[in-house]
Amino acid sequence: PNGYILDIEEIAQGVQSGSRLYLGKAITLLESSNPEHKKDGQELLNQLLPHTGNSLRLGITGVPGAGKSTFIETFGEMLTSLGHRVAVLAIDPSSSLTGGSILGDKTRMEELARNPKAFIRPSPTAGTLGGVHKKTRETMLLCEAAGYDIILVETVGVGQSETLVRSMVDMFMLLVLTGAGDELQGMKKGILELADAIIVHKADGENARLAKKTVSEYKQMMHFLQPATESWKTRSVAASSIDNTGITEVWEMVQEFDETVKESGYWKKRRQEQTKEWFRSMITDELHSRFFDDGNRREVVGLLEKQVLSDKLTVAQAIVKLFE
Amino acid sequence: PNGYILDIEEIAQGVQSGSRLYLGKAITLLESSNPEHKKDGQELLNQLLPHTGNSLRLGITGVPGAGKSTFIETFGEMLTSLGHRVAVLAIDPSSSLTGGSILGDKTRMEELARNPKAFIRPSPTAGTLGGVHKKTRETMLLCEAAGYDIILVETVGVGQSETLVRSMVDMFMLLVLTGAGDELQGMKKGILELADAIIVHKADGENARLAKKTVSEYKQMMHFLQPATESWKTRSVAASSIDNTGITEVWEMVQEFDETVKESGYWKKRRQEQTKEWFRSMITDELHSRFFDDGNRREVVGLLEKQVLSDKLTVAQAIVKLFE
Repeated sequence: PNGYILDIEEIAQGVQSGSRLYLGKAITLLESSNPEHKKDGQELLNQLLPHTGNSLRLGITGVPGAGKSTFIETFGEMLTSLGHRVAVLAIDPSSSLTGGSILGDKTRMEELARNPKAFIRPSPTAGTLGGVHKKTRETMLLCEAAGYDIILVETVGVGQSETLVRSMVDMFMLLVLTGAGDELQGMKKGILELADAIIVHKADGENARLAKKTVSEYKQMMHFLQPATESWKTRSVAASSIDNTGITEVWEMVQEFDETVKESGYWKKRRQEQTKEWFRSMITDELHSRFFDDGNRREVVGLLEKQVLSDKLTVAQAIVKLFE
Repeated sequence: PNGYILDIEEIAQGVQSGSRLYLGKAITLLESSNPEHKKDGQELLNQLLPHTGNSLRLGITGVPGAGKSTFIETFGEMLTSLGHRVAVLAIDPSSSLTGGSILGDKTRMEELARNPKAFIRPSPTAGTLGGVHKKTRETMLLCEAAGYDIILVETVGVGQSETLVRSMVDMFMLLVLTGAGDELQGMKKGILELADAIIVHKADGENARLAKKTVSEYKQMMHFLQPATESWKTRSVAASSIDNTGITEVWEMVQEFDETVKESGYWKKRRQEQTKEWFRSMITDELHSRFFDDGNRREVVGLLEKQVLSDKLTVAQAIVKLFE
């Protein structure tokens, strides 16, 4: 009666048939804030759940200027040429998928975007980091149901988003430039210990020699740090998207990683832990949003915080006042 | 009438007079789970609040075997000999203050424990990490009100506790042994980026030469990592508690740190941020404990988790079921 008629069954079948049109519809449904859509979206996702989880989930982060979009385009083209179906998702609005621009309507990966074996989806722009996280995870599941066997999740790696990406992928790669060290200053602390591989990118022209040195510097550094993945020793390799060198080697390394963690049993363990953690963080999110939904709760917290900061109240007393 | 008579005023004055007896009483009051005691404890803390915050708060962590207790004893003795009053608190039950033993009644720092200018308090044994955190923070405030101008907070550094300690101190030191790298394997990821100083300990006898090499290895590593404190470059120094070498240098460095961060304005900024964060984490703790207080909530969460892990339910649907 309200003009909203949606056949969940039809969309589910459309997604499973690999139709990009239906996949786009399904994602839009899950991203919608309309309660009716939300419900339908979850129903749809539930129908597709048995067909998810079969992809290789790969996170890619790097400092601005590291050439993430060029790398993803070259890497993605190589993967599709090998017969893979590749979905590229971005977790933050300032990622290279939207060119880091507020206009955000033009994707930089023009060639890959036209490739029938690839699917590119920029980040959901609205909502909290937790909300974006949820939507990206759900989009990932939909892409898997649509038959994409490699999912690349891109993040800019300067905020909290790379921890979130790490928590939803099997393997995490960090793109850096030659002259290791300086550029890491702008990155999140501990980023090296989240990465399974460091790709020294733009290893071409005059940079090629310097890239070699940078690779061995990172190798040295890795000795002192803990590997991100049980049973896998973090690697450091050089690559150039322009010269198309090192790209095949990256893919060989990714496959080796995949075999290693599946053999060791860590792959399954991590996937289960990731789902558990996701569930738990959603509980916390829900508790927070319910608590702060109460109109003046935020105001009260702000006032109590002021009193605490000026030593007029202990933290424990402020908590008592807040919850009484 | 119930035999519980407590003069908060008297205890507050006792604490401020520097009496270790009253300080001990005050801490016990704050650690008590008796609701009446809790209320009195908070009242007491509130009275003392204006007299807190004036100490240098120093966190010390390190792998087991790094000699934390020996270091703290030597360092503490030196500080008291310079006229300082030193309080030593531990944040986890397995810390060296209790000898890592389950008996936990014998402190290893016998000399420092007899020192009238020192106060040693082992970790509160009961409760969650969040609870221990709260109690340690409050004990720290009481010690400050009692005139202790240097607070050492010790942690074993293998779990989550060193992040908590980092969140309550001004400066954080990591004790390591020679042969950097291998030993860090057992530590928390990113621990190097929490530390303002790396002390290569046990730099005596045959180890002295090796310690020098280790110091420069850490220095090299620090180039690639982000400093823990704005305006301060993380340092690496060698020390021996047995030979009493490097201990004075550590103290000089701590003072230099203190001056630097106070001049840059970061000291104040960090303290305020720490208090804010504490308040916020207590809100989350409270929301969780209220939610899970409901008898069978944990059970329901466990059941839903199982359904999510076996792909029978999406995470979003499980959340809806949990909160409906």
